Amino acid sequence: MAHSVNRQAILGLGAVALRDRLASGALSAVELVEACLERIGEHEEQIGAWAWLDGDHALQQAQRLDQWRKAGRPLGPLHGLPVGLKDIIDTKGIPTENGTPIDAGRVPTEDAWIVARLRAAGAIILGKTVTTEGAFMHAGKTRNPHNPDHTPGGSSQGSAAAVAAGMVPFAVGTQTGGSVIRPASFCGVVGFKPSFGLIPRTGILSQSPHLDTVGVFARSIEDCALLSDVLTGYDPLDTATSAVPMPRMLDVAASKPPVLPDFALGRIPGWDQADPQMIDAIEELVAILDDKCFDAPLPELGQAAQTRELINFAEMAKCYYHFEARGRDQLSEKLCAAIDHGKDVMARDYISALDWRDVLNAGLEAIFNRADAIICPAALGPAPEGLDDTGSPIFNGLWTLAGVPVVTIPLFVAENGMPMGVQLVGRRGDDARLLRTARWLTSHLETIEDRELKL
Amino acid sequence: MAHSVNRQAILGLGAVALRDRLASGALSAVELVEACLERIGEHEEQIGAWAWLDGDHALQQAQRLDQWRKAGRPLGPLHGLPVGLKDIIDTKGIPTENGTPIDAGRVPTEDAWIVARLRAAGAIILGKTVTTEGAFMHAGKTRNPHNPDHTPGGSSQGSAAAVAAGMVPFAVGTQTGGSVIRPASFCGVVGFKPSFGLIPRTGILSQSPHLDTVGVFARSIEDCALLSDVLTGYDPLDTATSAVPMPRMLDVAASKPPVLPDFALGRIPGWDQADPQMIDAIEELVAILDDKCFDAPLPELGQAAQTRELINFAEMAKCYYHFEARGRDQLSEKLCAAIDHGKDVMARDYISALDWRDVLNAGLEAIFNRADAIICPAALGPAPEGLDDTGSPIFNGLWTLAGVPVVTIPLFVAENGMPMGVQLVGRRGDDARLLRTARWLTSHLETIEDRELKL
Repeated sequence: MAHSVNRQAILGLGAVALRDRLASGALSAVELVEACLERIGEHEEQIGAWAWLDGDHALQQAQRLDQWRKAGRPLGPLHGLPVGLKDIIDTKGIPTENGTPIDAGRVPTEDAWIVARLRAAGAIILGKTVTTEGAFMHAGKTRNPHNPDHTPGGSSQGSAAAVAAGMVPFAVGTQTGGSVIRPASFCGVVGFKPSFGLIPRTGILSQSPHLDTVGVFARSIEDCALLSDVLTGYDPLDTATSAVPMPRMLDVAASKPPVLPDFALGRIPGWDQADPQMIDAIEELVAILDDKCFDAPLPELGQAAQTRELINFAEMAKCYYHFEARGRDQLSEKLCAAIDHGKDVMARDYISALDWRDVLNAGLEAIFNRADAIICPAALGPAPEGLDDTGSPIFNGLWTLAGVPVVTIPLFVAENGMPMGVQLVGRRGDDARLLRTARWLTSHLETIEDRELKL
Repeated sequence: MAHSVNRQAILGLGAVALRDRLASGALSAVELVEACLERIGEHEEQIGAWAWLDGDHALQQAQRLDQWRKAGRPLGPLHGLPVGLKDIIDTKGIPTENGTPIDAGRVPTEDAWIVARLRAAGAIILGKTVTTEGAFMHAGKTRNPHNPDHTPGGSSQGSAAAVAAGMVPFAVGTQTGGSVIRPASFCGVVGFKPSFGLIPRTGILSQSPHLDTVGVFARSIEDCALLSDVLTGYDPLDTATSAVPMPRMLDVAASKPPVLPDFALGRIPGWDQADPQMIDAIEELVAILDDKCFDAPLPELGQAAQTRELINFAEMAKCYYHFEARGRDQLSEKLCAAIDHGKDVMARDYISALDWRDVLNAGLEAIFNRADAIICPAALGPAPEGLDDTGSPIFNGLWTLAGVPVVTIPLFVAENGMPMGVQLVGRRGDDARLLRTARWLTSHLETIEDRELKL
C-alpha cells in the first residue's frame, strides 16, 4: 500500500520534474511506467482513454531505457517519459485503427515521423489513445474523468482524458477543427496546438492536409513545451513544414517576458452562444488584467467557419475515399454526410477558400502588433452532458484555419465542478512567445490568489 | 552605314560575351541599346514582337548604367544587358496589359519580384513582349521571324520572336503548359524552363499557381544560364519557392561534365502524332549518341495531359474570375471555354490531380538514376502555317506538371527551312546539371560536324 501511495505521488509530478528525476536516476523508467499502469488499471474501465495498451510492451521499453542510462549512454530529452498517442498516429508493429472498424487490426509497418522522433528522444510509447471515428465527430468510448456522464470532447478524446486522469504525463493529438483545444478544455488540462507547419504529419491519418495540425496535452505549459520541442522539425515529405530553425519552446516558455505582456480580448463569432458562466469568467479575467487587456479590433470573421468547413470537407472527400471504398456502410452517418458534402464542393470555391488563411492573418496583424496574445474562450462552456455529442468547435476552427498557435489553460471551474479553459492565441510562428505569455498569465494569477489569501 | 554594320556585329554576340564587353567598357550600354533599337526598327513591323517599347526610356537606363560604370561603382551580373519581358510580368510605371483589352492602359505601381531583381542586377528593361491573351491560347500579333506566315508559337511568343530576330540578347517568358519550350522550338532559339519553384512569380499574372513557371529565351545555353541565375531565389510571398541555396547555373553549365553524360530517349504520349521529320531527326540524334542513349522506361503517362489540364482550368476559373467579372465579352471563345470547363471541376478531382506531380516524379526516378537527361521532341514538328493556332503543347505539359527542368535546343531544320528543337528533360532540382548536359550535347555535335567537314 505504501508503495502504491508513492507511485501516486510520482504521478503528481509534471513531465519536466519527472524528466529531471529520470535523468538523475532518482526515479527509474520502470517505476514511472508501473505507476502509470497502476493508475490506468484503477480508472480505465470508467474512462476508456486507451485504444491499445500493452503493459509488458511499455515495461520492456522502460527496462531498456533504464539499462541505457545505467550504461552511461547519452540521454534523450524525453528519456524514460511515457507518452500517449492518438490512434491515428502510425506506430510500427502496434495497432493503429483510426477509430473505425474498417481499420480494425491494422498494424503499420512504419512509425510516423513524430513517433520516430519520440523514440529517438527516449520517450516510451505507453499506448494508443482513443480517437473519434477518423478524427471527425462520431464519438469514441472515452468519458470525461471529471464526470463520466459528460463528453471528454473530441476528436483527441483519449489523449485529453488520459492526461487529465493522471494516467500519463503527456499525450499527442491532432486538430483539424477544434480537436485539441476543445477536449483539453473539457478535461481540464493544458492543450497546445502549435503553428501550422511546425510538426510534420507524415504517417498520421490525413483528413484535411491544409488544416490537420499536431498538438499536445499536458498538465502544465512547460510540459507541453517539453513535448512539442521534440515533435517540431522539417520533413521533406510534409510540404507544410520548412527547413528553418525551430522555436526553443521550453527555454522560452520557462523564461521571464522582457516586458509585461499585453492581451486583447477577442469576441469571436459564437460569443453570443457561449455559456454565461464562461463569459463571466472571461470578463473577470479581463478585469483582473485591467489596462493590460484591450478589446481586440477583430477583422471580418463571418465566413471563416464556413470556409474552414469547405476546405475540411472537400479534402476529406478526397482523403477518406479509401474508407468509403473499403466500407461506406461501416462509416457513421455524420462522417458520410460530411464526405458527401465535400464531394459537392467545386474546385474554384475550394481554391478561393485556401486564400483565406493569408487574409485572416493579415487581419490579425493589427492585433498582434499591440498584443502578445488574444484571449477568448476555449469552448462554449464546460463539457456538455452525454457522450454522443463531443461539443462545438466553434471557438477553435477559426484559429486552425489561420494556422496560428493556440493554447488552452484550465483556469475556470463551472458550478457543476467541470473545468473550463481560457484560450490564448498567438501570432503565426510566435509559438514560444505564446507559451511564455501563457505561463506569465498563470503565474500572475497565482500571485494575485496568494495575495488575496494573505489579506 | 559603317556604324550600322558594327551595330549588327554587336548583336551577333551572345549575352555572356556582351556582358564581358560591357563590364570592361569595350562596349557601352547605350551602343548596345542603340543596336537593339535599330534592329527592332528594321523588323518589328513584320514580326510584331513588342507589346510596349519606348526607345528613350531604354536609352535613359543605358545612359545611367554607363555613368554608373564610369563612376567606378560595382557592376551587377547583367550590367547593361537589355532584356525583353513577357507582358504578363508587372513593371512599375510601364504598361502591363496581359494580352487582353480588359487590361488596356494598365500600369502597375510595383515591379514583379524578378523585375526588381533584374534592375538590381543592372539589366535594362528594353520593353514588354507580346503574350497571347492571358498567357493562354488566343494568339497575339507576333509572327515567326523565320517565316511571317507561320506562328511563333505561344504563349510567350514575343519573347521567343524578339530573341530569334536578334532584337534583344535574351527575354523572359512563362510556361503553364508549353509556353516557353514550344515558341522557342518554333522560333529556333534556346528555351529553358527551370524546375518549378526556382523562380518567384510575385507580380506575374497568375493563371494556375501549381503550374505557372518562369522561363527564359536566349541564343545559347550559357546565355539562358546567365539570365536564370539572376531570376532564381526565395520569395516568402510565393510559397512554391524555398529558402535554399540556388544552383549556380552559369558556372556549372560552362563546366565540363565529370563523366560523359548518358541520355534516355522518351517516346512520350503524342509521339505518333509528330511530324515524321521531327521523329527522323530525333532518331538520327539517338543514332549519333549510340550507346550513350537508351530507351527510357517511361512510367504510365496516359492521364498526365488530362490531369495537367484539369489543374490548369480549375485554377484558371478561380484566378481569371477578375477578367470575367470585368468583361467576359472581351475574352476569346477559347479562354471562356477553358474557364467554363474549369468551373465544372470538382474539388476532390482537383485535389487528387495535385498528387500527380509526386507520382510522376517517382516514376521518372528510375530513368534519372541511369540518365542525365531524357531526350524528346520540343514540339510536334516545325511551326505550323497560319497565325491563329499557336501549335500543340503536347510534348510540354507533362514536364510542366512534373515541375522538372527542361531546355530546348534548336538543333534541327525542317525541309521548309523552319527550325525544330530537341527537348532535354532533367531531374527536378538538377537544373544546373541539365544545362551542363545540354551544353555538352551541343559541343559534342559540333565536334562531329567539324570532323565530318574535315573528312
